[in-house]
Amino acid sequence: MSENINTKPEGNKTISRVVIKRLPRYYRYLGELLKNDVVRISSKELSKKMNVTASQIRQDLNNFGGFGQQGYGYNVEYLYNEIGKILGLDRTNNIIIIGAGNLGQALANNQEFDSNGFRIIGLFDVNPRLVGMTVRGVEVYDIDTLEEFLKEHEVMIAALTLPGSKAVKVAADLVDLGIKAFWNFAPVDLHLSEDVTVENVHLAESIMTLSYRIHSKS
Amino acid sequence: MSENINTKPEGNKTISRVVIKRLPRYYRYLGELLKNDVVRISSKELSKKMNVTASQIRQDLNNFGGFGQQGYGYNVEYLYNEIGKILGLDRTNNIIIIGAGNLGQALANNQEFDSNGFRIIGLFDVNPRLVGMTVRGVEVYDIDTLEEFLKEHEVMIAALTLPGSKAVKVAADLVDLGIKAFWNFAPVDLHLSEDVTVENVHLAESIMTLSYRIHSKS
Repeated sequence: MSENINTKPEGNKTISRVVIKRLPRYYRYLGELLKNDVVRISSKELSKKMNVTASQIRQDLNNFGGFGQQGYGYNVEYLYNEIGKILGLDRTNNIIIIGAGNLGQALANNQEFDSNGFRIIGLFDVNPRLVGMTVRGVEVYDIDTLEEFLKEHEVMIAALTLPGSKAVKVAADLVDLGIKAFWNFAPVDLHLSEDVTVENVHLAESIMTLSYRIHSKS
Repeated sequence: MSENINTKPEGNKTISRVVIKRLPRYYRYLGELLKNDVVRISSKELSKKMNVTASQIRQDLNNFGGFGQQGYGYNVEYLYNEIGKILGLDRTNNIIIIGAGNLGQALANNQEFDSNGFRIIGLFDVNPRLVGMTVRGVEVYDIDTLEEFLKEHEVMIAALTLPGSKAVKVAADLVDLGIKAFWNFAPVDLHLSEDVTVENVHLAESIMTLSYRIHSKS
């Protein structure tokens, strides 16, 4: 099986959302191969592991210029690093978490993020019982100190783990303070300006989708 | 603005995954309208609120037979209930959570699930320090009691909030014990038999997607 060679420049081509969503999964699989000292892999082998077609893998990667060498497959480490760069994981992305309840603490405790260049540098809450606590060495601050904190720290992403009713107001305040990206766990859509990026994790919607899939089978 | 009338029978038509993913969002918006005593809404008004096109809404709902009445728009309560039925929310779906750490506790604490017919009836963990605890009235059991528990309770969904290395084994065991649906938070793909439904919430992949979107903008 030969790999496609694609010399198309990346340019300003828009990559579809669906392709982007698959990149982290490639990255995860390549990371596992790397851990197991696999040096080279064909799109066919990778496709078997990942349960997608080899042609899909080649097409997806061709969006970014290919990476394969005809007849030789992919160099695992190279491809891993290149996808990492595409995903912006080659730099440190500082994160703050607004809402230091169970979910905020769960995110702060998740070691997967560290190893991918995401660094949680503070949790914020209104609850005085939580303020002053530390989660894996990260302090919970009073939300009133947020403005000051943002003057002193470069923050790339704000994770919102607070009720929907509060998230809208807090997000607007954070945009005023210069935050340009939200990882939104609140069950609400944030309507912010064009230059602000919002990635939603709507848990209730996820379980409803699961429920649909179960009940439509039976 | 008139609504499409669609008399097409639902039959065994396969509904695309993308449409299914939008249903919970419709359900959320309609729930809010209902709370605000809105009786009737046109697809145009709903589209403004939801930031999608009216034609998209009509198309999506036509997959399930329409629900609109030409010139009259949608009856909010009726549509809310019908979408609820499609999503399987008109019955109680019992859930167990495997892994009673922060994330498991966060799910158990989330009141959004209750109001949609999802009932968390037990958490399970290997950690003796967690066993015996209760989270919003739900007990944390020793994972060794799982088999017995499943004999006595009807469980629709198992949420997996444990490390990837353990999730694969636990999921296989649960399938042997009759579980047919997983809400998987572990950073691993579960390759289970065809009749088992898996809905993944891969947090690391979600934040990588956000990172891509941030860095591809600049």
